Amino acid sequence: MKDSLRDLNITELSTMEEDSGLDIMYLNKHRHSSSTSSSAPERENDGFNKRKLRITMQDYPRKSGQILSGQYGINLLLLGFAFMLGVSYHGHSIKEKHLVSYITTLMLMQLLWMLWYIVRKDRQKHALPEKDAHAGTSWLRGGLTILAMLSLIMDAFRIGKYVGYKACLSSALVVYPVVHAIHTISQVYFLWFHIKDVIKTFETFERFGVIHAVFTNLLLWCSGAMTESQNVLDAHKKRLSALGFMNYTYESHEPYCNCTTKACSMFSNSLYYLYPFNIEYHIIVSAMLFVMWKNIGRTIEHHQHHIKKKPVAKTAGLVAGPILGFVALAGTIGVLVVYLIQVEATLETRTWAIHMFYQHGIVLMGSMFIASTLGLIIYRTDSWPQDSSKNPSRQLDKELLCGSAIGSWIMSWCGVVAAVASHSEPSYRWTNLAYSLLLVLEKYFQNLFIVESLYLKQEDEEEGSAREVEEGVERSGEAGMSSSRIFSVTSSSTQVPPYDGIINQAFVTQEKMCISLDGSQVKNSHLYQYQCQTPQDSPPLPAVSRTAAALNRKRQILRNIAVFLVLCNSALWLLPAFGCRPQYDNGLEQETFGFAIWTMVLNFAMPLNLFYRMHSVASLFEVFCHV
Amino acid sequence: MKDSLRDLNITELSTMEEDSGLDIMYLNKHRHSSSTSSSAPERENDGFNKRKLRITMQDYPRKSGQILSGQYGINLLLLGFAFMLGVSYHGHSIKEKHLVSYITTLMLMQLLWMLWYIVRKDRQKHALPEKDAHAGTSWLRGGLTILAMLSLIMDAFRIGKYVGYKACLSSALVVYPVVHAIHTISQVYFLWFHIKDVIKTFETFERFGVIHAVFTNLLLWCSGAMTESQNVLDAHKKRLSALGFMNYTYESHEPYCNCTTKACSMFSNSLYYLYPFNIEYHIIVSAMLFVMWKNIGRTIEHHQHHIKKKPVAKTAGLVAGPILGFVALAGTIGVLVVYLIQVEATLETRTWAIHMFYQHGIVLMGSMFIASTLGLIIYRTDSWPQDSSKNPSRQLDKELLCGSAIGSWIMSWCGVVAAVASHSEPSYRWTNLAYSLLLVLEKYFQNLFIVESLYLKQEDEEEGSAREVEEGVERSGEAGMSSSRIFSVTSSSTQVPPYDGIINQAFVTQEKMCISLDGSQVKNSHLYQYQCQTPQDSPPLPAVSRTAAALNRKRQILRNIAVFLVLCNSALWLLPAFGCRPQYDNGLEQETFGFAIWTMVLNFAMPLNLFYRMHSVASLFEVFCHV
Repeated sequence: MKDSLRDLNITELSTMEEDSGLDIMYLNKHRHSSSTSSSAPERENDGFNKRKLRITMQDYPRKSGQILSGQYGINLLLLGFAFMLGVSYHGHSIKEKHLVSYITTLMLMQLLWMLWYIVRKDRQKHALPEKDAHAGTSWLRGGLTILAMLSLIMDAFRIGKYVGYKACLSSALVVYPVVHAIHTISQVYFLWFHIKDVIKTFETFERFGVIHAVFTNLLLWCSGAMTESQNVLDAHKKRLSALGFMNYTYESHEPYCNCTTKACSMFSNSLYYLYPFNIEYHIIVSAMLFVMWKNIGRTIEHHQHHIKKKPVAKTAGLVAGPILGFVALAGTIGVLVVYLIQVEATLETRTWAIHMFYQHGIVLMGSMFIASTLGLIIYRTDSWPQDSSKNPSRQLDKELLCGSAIGSWIMSWCGVVAAVASHSEPSYRWTNLAYSLLLVLEKYFQNLFIVESLYLKQEDEEEGSAREVEEGVERSGEAGMSSSRIFSVTSSSTQVPPYDGIINQAFVTQEKMCISLDGSQVKNSHLYQYQCQTPQDSPPLPAVSRTAAALNRKRQILRNIAVFLVLCNSALWLLPAFGCRPQYDNGLEQETFGFAIWTMVLNFAMPLNLFYRMHSVASLFEVFCHV
Repeated sequence: MKDSLRDLNITELSTMEEDSGLDIMYLNKHRHSSSTSSSAPERENDGFNKRKLRITMQDYPRKSGQILSGQYGINLLLLGFAFMLGVSYHGHSIKEKHLVSYITTLMLMQLLWMLWYIVRKDRQKHALPEKDAHAGTSWLRGGLTILAMLSLIMDAFRIGKYVGYKACLSSALVVYPVVHAIHTISQVYFLWFHIKDVIKTFETFERFGVIHAVFTNLLLWCSGAMTESQNVLDAHKKRLSALGFMNYTYESHEPYCNCTTKACSMFSNSLYYLYPFNIEYHIIVSAMLFVMWKNIGRTIEHHQHHIKKKPVAKTAGLVAGPILGFVALAGTIGVLVVYLIQVEATLETRTWAIHMFYQHGIVLMGSMFIASTLGLIIYRTDSWPQDSSKNPSRQLDKELLCGSAIGSWIMSWCGVVAAVASHSEPSYRWTNLAYSLLLVLEKYFQNLFIVESLYLKQEDEEEGSAREVEEGVERSGEAGMSSSRIFSVTSSSTQVPPYDGIINQAFVTQEKMCISLDGSQVKNSHLYQYQCQTPQDSPPLPAVSRTAAALNRKRQILRNIAVFLVLCNSALWLLPAFGCRPQYDNGLEQETFGFAIWTMVLNFAMPLNLFYRMHSVASLFEVFCHV
């Protein structure tokens, strides 16, 4: 008993020290006096103090490690950004080959680090690595693999294009796709087998490695987004000059020599359609790696889910959501095709196409707004169990959703201002206004819906805890239970509380405290029993099953909403990703803000908007699995 | 005894529920069974459950409140940003009066909210409000008051300018400075008396109020920064055309009518020099209000410092830092004056002035880099006690430092790229390169130094805890101490642990646990005494005083470094704030990136850089008080 209590207290103190900044040095300084005043054995104290010292030494570089590596990463990106600015000027000093060489160097450095990491991990196979269950779900990695494959095709096309224009292109432009392909393959391997790792050794060095990977991918995203914006702008200018709107001499960004193969134009055109996937691949990878970076040195509880997930139950009752969603998706693809054809034809069809786009958008935004609001109302009608344990993935999801929504919001507000202030009177003036306002509302409520859903306690967890409750009641009479419980917190025992992934400090402390009180036979035991057993030791009530059925119906509705929103957001990703960007074509904003400023706004906002849609699809899919 | 134990546990559970996501609904659902199985009095359970229910109801809107209000604030800013873009285009649709009217409306809304808040607080004077000791230190508020006064002078000048041009200016342009003056006065009052408040009532509404204030000030900052950039750009263009560099027809942004008073040009010119202060005022206010927003609904321990701060000891040994700092400041002011005169004279003096600027910069950056590194080495040579308790002010300080450094870093990296890639060969080409690289390093290490210093445990706290230790030993024999200790955690008793400001969850739990174990006469008491008394019950050792003297010397060096860096950063704020911006004049970056892109970069980076310097001055002053 005494031993188990000592163990409990040491674990407790050390976790406290790590997470909440108890002054460890202070403890060390004054320990002698307490050991003389108390009659505790010296040996015990020594072990205790060694443990504390080790934590102190580890704690210091960790704190600095974050800011050291974070600043390094930012500067890596900013140097790349400076190159990008130089390239986008099309001046004499900075050429594409300089940017590409810089990115290639970064990718090679990342490759070296990943190799080192993987080899080292393979050697330590006997040691059970700590994992964060929340990082990089398997469906996310699956989706990424598809995007990575499309990126590989893109690399192949790039190499093909280089072969055609070999005479006048720098060799950096063929090294880049080759290194990028190797980088993509190794990175996908890394994501599959190591993204959940919680790094505990060489922390400062690993921080640099991971943040290097994060910012390399972020730079690849920036550079891809810049190239794509350039492509779209060129297409827009070509269209305008074809319609006779502007006196525009088309500057070709193609190389200044003849293609030696027949496939050059095919490669160039296909690249245009593959860019969106490549861009999304890099931004999602960098978000996942960022979570890995945040996890370095964290205290993670590794335990397995004992309750198998039931995918069958998830799809039951899924009717309205998928049907409406697919209708929206099909309609959007129709609109996309019609828009792309009509906007290039005549001035009249152009106006009509833009008008159609806004009307379609209003219907879509309206229904998405209604769906999100319905979900929020459902959350308000009932008291849903909430899970607010620490979870860096979820925190990042939330911040990324609100952060990337800024792109779309700034476009919307510019649209609102332009529609109200405009002196011209195109037919789509007021539909543009309505569309912009609905877009703001839709994002506002969709974000709210996603965030509230992610903070919901998972159905599995509830069932799991209910099952554990029953088990707990059966075993409640057994002796010695308290001591086995003590170890269930620190080691990965079979009986674990219903929170998963990460240690919940307060919960752990509470549980331990109850046990130590039990173990030392405290008086007023009825009170303690009440306090301690509430989370685990009460059998389900008969009334609960009725409310459970109602809850289940509500969960079905929520799942339908999530599926509908997934499909709508995919549709809204498709539109701008494949060139349907009326923000360029409608002329209202251009009149109010001028071509230069408006293009600058779009170059900033469009990539963010695309990322928002992709990210909200991923988050909503998680909501679907979660509810 | 029983009562006190119950109190302890209720407090404990409720804080756990609030902060760490224990499943409260789950507790509610299953409470009946536990009350039937245990023999506890029903009355006690009822009170307990009511408390839990209340927490559930409060907890839900709080979670959503953050994201609801945060999104509202972002959209407020983005709409203002859309207006700003329209104004900066100088088109026909959006005029300055539109932007100014929008900002005036926001300020009036903020005034209404502040009035409501102050009146309500005054009525509840009997209730002791909770305060966050870390938010808005008095010297920060003092500094802000000076900035606010300069803003008031600026408002007076604006009104004066309006009077002169009354014939051709919109009345919105006189309403704005009047409302701004009222807004400034009320806001300073609010900051003095309410910025430390921890809001616990009407949380969702208050969140909207505070975030509205945050984003109103942020918008005022953005709008001020935009106007200032415009001024600097105009001055630059005027200079260039005077030197015969460009064929530039000076577009006046002055009103198109004659001034009816004699003071118009005086007002216009003075406004130019007052802008920097006004801009800094708004950004610092918005950072302070943001901390207030983060504090809404937090659990804060209110206790007073019993140990008076000794300002005398702080200034002892302060020689090298201030002297070197004032030399740097005086030198910088000299450089500023010479630069402003020489850059407008002839082409030759212009080149010479830029060269001088970079040489001065290299010396300054080099010494700041050495000072920061010295500080970091001192931290590495000894194990300094660290304080990592939760503290939103400090967290925000850290993020703002790294975030605003981006502005300066992007300029530096562009400078590096331009210096390397340039085809022209001005005399300052390589000094520009060295200056840019040193700037990156200086910010990198200065940030590291500031952040590590802020995470240091304060000297006062250490002394305070040592004194408390002695008091604790004297009283340790008294009976009934345990129960008095219990209340010292929840009420503001005289005896408090050495962490200040915010409840340290783990610490509190630990202390409570020890007491409850004492109270219930546990066996193995020597072990518990050791565990519980380590932080408090050991008298200082004789050896400590020797190391304390060494530590004190090191603290003196650190204080000198902090003062030196404060003065250097002030100097580096002065330079760009008063028009010494060689980034416009040197021509290297303009050659590499083009005028449009480079101006865009400067418009983004310059305000951030100014904010960085001001913010690092504030942070370093805090470091000085802290060490």
